[in-house]
Amino acid sequence: MNNFTFYSPTEFVFGRGTEQQVGDMCLKYGAQRIMIVYGGGSIIKSGLLDKVSASLDAAGLPIIELKGVQPNPIDTKVYEGITLAKAFKPNLILAIGGGSVIDTAKAIAVGYYYEGDFWDFYIGKAKPQQAIPVGVVLTIPAAGSEGSGNTVITNTTTHVKAGLRQPMILRPKFAIMNPELTMTLPAWQTASGITDMMAHILERYLSNTTDVQIGDRLAEGMLMAIMETSEKLMANPNDYEARANIMWCGTIAHNDTCSLGRQEDWNSHAMEHEISAEYDVTHGAGLAVIFPAFLQYASEHNPHKVAQLAHRVLGIADSGNVKEDALKGALKLKEWLHNTLNMPVNFKQLGIENPDLELMNTRLHRLKGEIMQGYMPLDAQATMEIYRLAL
Amino acid sequence: MNNFTFYSPTEFVFGRGTEQQVGDMCLKYGAQRIMIVYGGGSIIKSGLLDKVSASLDAAGLPIIELKGVQPNPIDTKVYEGITLAKAFKPNLILAIGGGSVIDTAKAIAVGYYYEGDFWDFYIGKAKPQQAIPVGVVLTIPAAGSEGSGNTVITNTTTHVKAGLRQPMILRPKFAIMNPELTMTLPAWQTASGITDMMAHILERYLSNTTDVQIGDRLAEGMLMAIMETSEKLMANPNDYEARANIMWCGTIAHNDTCSLGRQEDWNSHAMEHEISAEYDVTHGAGLAVIFPAFLQYASEHNPHKVAQLAHRVLGIADSGNVKEDALKGALKLKEWLHNTLNMPVNFKQLGIENPDLELMNTRLHRLKGEIMQGYMPLDAQATMEIYRLAL
Repeated sequence: MNNFTFYSPTEFVFGRGTEQQVGDMCLKYGAQRIMIVYGGGSIIKSGLLDKVSASLDAAGLPIIELKGVQPNPIDTKVYEGITLAKAFKPNLILAIGGGSVIDTAKAIAVGYYYEGDFWDFYIGKAKPQQAIPVGVVLTIPAAGSEGSGNTVITNTTTHVKAGLRQPMILRPKFAIMNPELTMTLPAWQTASGITDMMAHILERYLSNTTDVQIGDRLAEGMLMAIMETSEKLMANPNDYEARANIMWCGTIAHNDTCSLGRQEDWNSHAMEHEISAEYDVTHGAGLAVIFPAFLQYASEHNPHKVAQLAHRVLGIADSGNVKEDALKGALKLKEWLHNTLNMPVNFKQLGIENPDLELMNTRLHRLKGEIMQGYMPLDAQATMEIYRLAL
Repeated sequence: MNNFTFYSPTEFVFGRGTEQQVGDMCLKYGAQRIMIVYGGGSIIKSGLLDKVSASLDAAGLPIIELKGVQPNPIDTKVYEGITLAKAFKPNLILAIGGGSVIDTAKAIAVGYYYEGDFWDFYIGKAKPQQAIPVGVVLTIPAAGSEGSGNTVITNTTTHVKAGLRQPMILRPKFAIMNPELTMTLPAWQTASGITDMMAHILERYLSNTTDVQIGDRLAEGMLMAIMETSEKLMANPNDYEARANIMWCGTIAHNDTCSLGRQEDWNSHAMEHEISAEYDVTHGAGLAVIFPAFLQYASEHNPHKVAQLAHRVLGIADSGNVKEDALKGALKLKEWLHNTLNMPVNFKQLGIENPDLELMNTRLHRLKGEIMQGYMPLDAQATMEIYRLAL
């Protein structure tokens, strides 16, 4: 087990009706002026925005709104938010939505204090020292950004989708999580979110750091809980209990609970970022296409963890042949994603008939270097093979 | 799933050599004057106290020492600490040791600000509003107090061992956890600690709240990781990796990771507290005696979760007979505690030939009421039957 630091100070307020506490929570964390960030009209239509506004109003908190954050959030909205924030001077940014909204809020929160271009943080040119505190009212369980120190933004000029990880300053102060708010999510969005959280776990599980039994068992437990709960949820979208399990799973899938003390592998996420940056597909759906291909490649080149996953989570009997079992596991997961979640599992199903694999592969290695280190070292030939396996 | 709040702001600094950061961590959390709390001579003999003192000295922090905390920590040491603290006015209390030391530090931390008797907090007569921040250098993985909002103290006058739970103010600010510091623990203490953390998980697992799939799977995963790692550790006490897994398991077993959203059952812990309060046995050893008896009773009166444990964790095949499988599970766990950890699993092995069951049972219900609610309602007859099953 490697040395690690774990600091997860977010206060999670979870359950029915909890959005009514948003005003009190903002006050508790010292807010005096609040910038609200959200996406499209769904929180207006559902009445959530009214409820939140009423609660903030009752708490006597002046607010300014930044709306129109889109899925696969983009730099231009961040610039707009920073400008707005510099004028309004909020001391808390409240994200109401899912990962895209929260990631945008975090980008504004660090960009606010920086003289240069906030994008510097995302390409490693500078390191943020402070951030405006962020609070969250979560409406989409998927990205886990409500509990993580991460944010991902797409640069609309370069088409680069890049992430920033700063747990010490970027974890939200509080996250209000009412599973009822997720009841009306379309099946497609629910399933994409579930795929995203499963990927977050697998990216921590696929590791060559040995002897992290606790991390392995927690990851396997989360995956089993997600799979059994997803089956209920896809059959009955109004199942509160299933919604609640999935919502909490999304948070702990990405708050490092199952990755502490070991190397992670985020190469499949990076490979998907190229797809969604170029073709603007839903992130989770892109992962459903890439991940099985990634596991299939791993079952040939570094099968041990994929085989363990197959045995412990996916119900594959141990045949003694590690590669064979790993491949069976990869195919089983692919089948499950398609049959249970109705996810696309290849480019065609994703709606991309002729993906420009060369373009994505070139951009990928331009951003990540010649050899992408991780569970398996991946050069351009290897990632191209994975992209091809996803055709 | 029930509504819940989860707030775990402790910064964990985990791994080899981390105790050298103690001075910096104290400064990071605003310390200017420090009260050190520890137990016997082991941290002097091992050189740990010197290292910590050197680090605090280098950070320019004045300190005062409270030593002599004993296992099953007592109120008189807390009174001594409060008096010392009122004179010295520390703004951080640094506990160096295991659960007894940390629990004493927490008791001093809340007692410091209270005009009345700190014991009022432990018997529900008053609720603490604030506490001196507590930092930890952990030397014994067991109680999980380094990450929890709990403290347990024994009243030497009334022989009552009682707990206080206040996660919002009692979770330590930081916990430094170097598994190397646990290498020299005697096998008995290692095994008692492992039993304690397993009990902490089981007390969260034994619940009638349905549909908490994520909590169940995480609890089961932790138990499997503890069991497989314990086997390595008991065979080779110098196995750093096994020590590291156990150390981290002890923390998350008790930081609520696997209990969120459901009712817990702490009745077996309460039953053990009567044993260690009267006979001053090691808490974990007392649990090894009580827990199998508790599970055996449950396998007759409310078997469903014990059967699930048997099937998913203990390798018992599903026979279709819930009570029978639950009983097999209870007996299998008892056997494992005795064979792998060399724990006593009845009063005689614990060194108590003729336990005064009536006395303990009377005190138990005087403290906890006529019917102890939980996974199973327990009246005096029921708890007496459990004590008898432990004979």
